[in-house]
Amino acid sequence: MEIIECVPNFSTSDSKIAELILHEIRKTENAFLLDYTFDDYYNRLVVSFVGNRESVLEAALSSALKAIELIDMRKHKGQHPRLGAVDVVPFIPIKDVAIKDCIEIARKFGKTLAEKCDVPVYLYGEAGAKPERKDLDWIREGEYEKLAEMIVKPERRPDFGSAKFNQKTGATITGARKIMAGFNVNLGTPDLKIAKKIANALHEKKGGFSSVKAMAAFIAEKNITQIGMSISDFEKTPLYRVFEALKVECARYNVPIVGSEFCGLAPLGALIDTASYYLKIDNLSEDRVLEIAVQNVMKKGGAFE
Amino acid sequence: MEIIECVPNFSTSDSKIAELILHEIRKTENAFLLDYTFDDYYNRLVVSFVGNRESVLEAALSSALKAIELIDMRKHKGQHPRLGAVDVVPFIPIKDVAIKDCIEIARKFGKTLAEKCDVPVYLYGEAGAKPERKDLDWIREGEYEKLAEMIVKPERRPDFGSAKFNQKTGATITGARKIMAGFNVNLGTPDLKIAKKIANALHEKKGGFSSVKAMAAFIAEKNITQIGMSISDFEKTPLYRVFEALKVECARYNVPIVGSEFCGLAPLGALIDTASYYLKIDNLSEDRVLEIAVQNVMKKGGAFE
Repeated sequence: MEIIECVPNFSTSDSKIAELILHEIRKTENAFLLDYTFDDYYNRLVVSFVGNRESVLEAALSSALKAIELIDMRKHKGQHPRLGAVDVVPFIPIKDVAIKDCIEIARKFGKTLAEKCDVPVYLYGEAGAKPERKDLDWIREGEYEKLAEMIVKPERRPDFGSAKFNQKTGATITGARKIMAGFNVNLGTPDLKIAKKIANALHEKKGGFSSVKAMAAFIAEKNITQIGMSISDFEKTPLYRVFEALKVECARYNVPIVGSEFCGLAPLGALIDTASYYLKIDNLSEDRVLEIAVQNVMKKGGAFE
Repeated sequence: MEIIECVPNFSTSDSKIAELILHEIRKTENAFLLDYTFDDYYNRLVVSFVGNRESVLEAALSSALKAIELIDMRKHKGQHPRLGAVDVVPFIPIKDVAIKDCIEIARKFGKTLAEKCDVPVYLYGEAGAKPERKDLDWIREGEYEKLAEMIVKPERRPDFGSAKFNQKTGATITGARKIMAGFNVNLGTPDLKIAKKIANALHEKKGGFSSVKAMAAFIAEKNITQIGMSISDFEKTPLYRVFEALKVECARYNVPIVGSEFCGLAPLGALIDTASYYLKIDNLSEDRVLEIAVQNVMKKGGAFE
């Protein structure tokens, strides 16, 4: 049975708007909401849901249309880079489905959204047509605020829709990618300059790890800073290695790590890697985890209704 | 849907005998083999399978009968404490089933085995009638070699079968318990004296952690030693804490840890605890792991066939 995950990022942290967007996913048959988070400092709603190729596309479209209706980018502020109301919509293969199927879904999503709402759409990740277009950072350069001047450049022509700035909505990025690990680390300092230096030390483009993006944010209500990271290929660049490097940089500035969290759901592979590194486990695979092994034999035995 | 796990331990590492025992489980309808391991230094076959209350009892009984037919304890040597051919048979609640149901299954298993094979059977764990009888160490005191003199003591009367020494088969222990974590750590020293000191430092009865049993074994083919541990309640005494204490003791003797492994399947909770400790994660629960969250919504949505 095919399972595709979709993790749309919307530029809002208004709980009423969030509820209306989530409702569009909840009401879609065969689409299942897994998780959502939003917070004021990023001013961003990150949702995760799964479905088959029809239901995942349907839920992605109807939630995006609702967000475009309700979010006005002219009023949006937030520390996370963003280009539009529906900022980025990745489709991720989970089971019995290939990355090329997800590319196809992303293309359908982008084409439909551009036609229905007059919003320019960029393809990224595995769906990106050129090397630079695979990269979110490149596409989001200048963010919403500079989109009007960026979008008219020939090399930045959107993949769907016209190269015209949509003030209310901005632009949308969609594509296909593998499961990634999102991980936020809270630092016991309000000093954003130091947090930025630590983030830079980890960031791919700035001499850090390949497949790592890291940014620093200030969390006013706690008077601390946060390193927000995403590891696009945590098999190549395991989470523990990035975390240990972060500890080294924190030690340099005498900054304590006061807590951390997965941004969204935790991929089992990242937990296994982490436990294996710190406990010196020789080999541990997902199918050697009790809960997964039970699930696997039950499905094979047809014991699930 | 109810799921019960059974983890029988048989006193053999003969691959032909192991295959015949495993066949009894494989052929049982609605029983599903999850895992098995055996090795020469412990001379012990540890099997894990799941089923409902009928199938798990049936598979446990037929595999035990086969083991009693094929294993002769008069020829058995091994570094793991043991009382008989079918040494210990715990039943573990996994899903939609209570510990009292597992106690009932264990009682049926013990009664039937004693009647069919003239083997004395002790109940342990949650099924143990008295505090000391909950404890495997107490029941196995003196092991097979002293069973003849121990079994006739009034306070050591078996729960099922007569208090008569069965030379070929020894005695069997059965009961109910929670999921536990079995964890083996390999030490870069052949010195069994040092390994024993390290094991003792962790062992519940010797001043170590409550709910931890630890033993030392020599692994001839690698010329190293191994600490074999079981943590009966890894929520109370998390694996990382035991591992860090083990590191401290190893440092004392300048002994390196050269590798480790879960003995049997790895409980997800132990992996989450470990990752959370080392990465300073504030809160991470099983349902926030992507693979588990997907499984949960799919089952709820009736999307599994």
